[in-house]
Amino acid sequence: MTAAGTGSSLPNAAPQLSADASARELVEARLEHLLATPAGVPPHLAAALRHALLAPSKRIRPLLVLHVSEPRAAEVTPALDLGCAVEMVHTASLILDDLPCMDDAQMRRQRPTTHMAFGQATAILAAIALLTQAFAVLGQLDGVSDSTKVRLAAELSAAVGGAGLVAGQELDVNGRDSIVAADGIERLNWLKTGVLFVAAARMGAMLRGLPEEEVEAVGLFASHLGLAFQTADDLLDRTATAGEAGKDVGKDGGKTTLVTLFGEQAAQLSYREHLAKAEAALAQTRITPEPLLTMMARLFDRREIRTP
Amino acid sequence: MTAAGTGSSLPNAAPQLSADASARELVEARLEHLLATPAGVPPHLAAALRHALLAPSKRIRPLLVLHVSEPRAAEVTPALDLGCAVEMVHTASLILDDLPCMDDAQMRRQRPTTHMAFGQATAILAAIALLTQAFAVLGQLDGVSDSTKVRLAAELSAAVGGAGLVAGQELDVNGRDSIVAADGIERLNWLKTGVLFVAAARMGAMLRGLPEEEVEAVGLFASHLGLAFQTADDLLDRTATAGEAGKDVGKDGGKTTLVTLFGEQAAQLSYREHLAKAEAALAQTRITPEPLLTMMARLFDRREIRTP
Repeated sequence: MTAAGTGSSLPNAAPQLSADASARELVEARLEHLLATPAGVPPHLAAALRHALLAPSKRIRPLLVLHVSEPRAAEVTPALDLGCAVEMVHTASLILDDLPCMDDAQMRRQRPTTHMAFGQATAILAAIALLTQAFAVLGQLDGVSDSTKVRLAAELSAAVGGAGLVAGQELDVNGRDSIVAADGIERLNWLKTGVLFVAAARMGAMLRGLPEEEVEAVGLFASHLGLAFQTADDLLDRTATAGEAGKDVGKDGGKTTLVTLFGEQAAQLSYREHLAKAEAALAQTRITPEPLLTMMARLFDRREIRTP
Repeated sequence: MTAAGTGSSLPNAAPQLSADASARELVEARLEHLLATPAGVPPHLAAALRHALLAPSKRIRPLLVLHVSEPRAAEVTPALDLGCAVEMVHTASLILDDLPCMDDAQMRRQRPTTHMAFGQATAILAAIALLTQAFAVLGQLDGVSDSTKVRLAAELSAAVGGAGLVAGQELDVNGRDSIVAADGIERLNWLKTGVLFVAAARMGAMLRGLPEEEVEAVGLFASHLGLAFQTADDLLDRTATAGEAGKDVGKDGGKTTLVTLFGEQAAQLSYREHLAKAEAALAQTRITPEPLLTMMARLFDRREIRTP
């Protein structure tokens, strides 16, 4: 069963495909440029940074930033750089999640995880370098006011810090056993995925200069999108092969998820509810919905959630 | 032999002792306050953050910020918070340096290293949380202009990133074998220690609104201070007991340092030269030199560098 078959009003994926593909190419070229800029990076570390950041990826978060901020052609660079900063943070979190002391994953994005390829020390340092560079990129956004830069940095640090992504990973590693109810799982899913989706969307709205109520609405949209995404990921982990997922699967077998708690059918229901709520929130903003809805459709279309 | 006995014009430590001690108390109370503020931090992670950040420490970097920015009483909070942000970054770097895949240290600041006490995953996450909070603190400096905040964040991210502290640790772990000359060691010492000393001093000068040439001069001062400090640390590692150092010693036994390359006497000479150059650079600024020179004297007075 796919998102397109759930009665959602998500549009067919085809028309937007090439637009997203070319946006993704823009993002990847810009990521490569941003990695190439800093001098003085030791070669082994630089190679690890490229390995992690330039691996094949859907670039959902940068696309989210671009589709929310809808830059005119002349303004594409700040939105693109903002998207790249979010992608750097996301990649840093993946590097750390994959470490032996966390998920102990061997494969990610179709290639060996960063610590498998470069050693644990360099992997950890690469994560720190990416995280730090993300803040540096925010400070250098071309033509953006200092007050907006300060606001963006505050949003990003709150999303990453001890009450954000870091809290999610801590609970994932040391707190899963205590999760016995749906709201605990949703909080964990929110912290693991939703929090950065929300930050990406809100930052895109801030960059665009949208009023506060629309920043809130687009944050709500992204929150539901993130929760749907994480639930789909948990479903995928149960049903996909490693080749399909491009990473280790079945790693979550011992972990409490919505799937293990309530079964696949309930997880799919929750996932569809979040998609519907995401659409409703988006409708409260001036943002052109089609590119985002198409992106969602493509995202979940790929994740065929089959009963084993 | 101590710094005080090297012919340097460093003043006697006694008069300033109480001033620095009370500044250190201010720093520690403020660190505790900053840790207490964020909601939503999982308890195990929060305990790790307190363990690492509130451990006994000389708080050199916050004192450096305070002595450079010389806040009037009413302006103490931004300088104090800036110092705390630097201390958060420094503590994050210590947590990571101590990991099994890096220096594999058991003790630090008189207590078990963070990964020994809380596990590797939580230790790594604590480092990320501290680093991220440092950027958050910069964004919230009371009464400081957005343009200064942006400038401070740029300085901090450059000091930490792939060409800063992270590069130093990468070279320390994976590049020591290739270091065969004094300038290689000095570069490594600069990256491991000097870079954050320099950032602390420069940020203090920026906060104070000093002109660019004085920001440069105080950066040069801190650079020499940092190199002296790292060389003293290498000397200390060879000669102190664990009890004296408050951390594992002799861990650097297999590593190339100025001491292993050229012997203790040459290392001591280099260390004294850096102290003299630090003083000369400081004299090019309007900063009251006594508190900084006294801090240096106390710092190196403690590190009795004995021939075994």
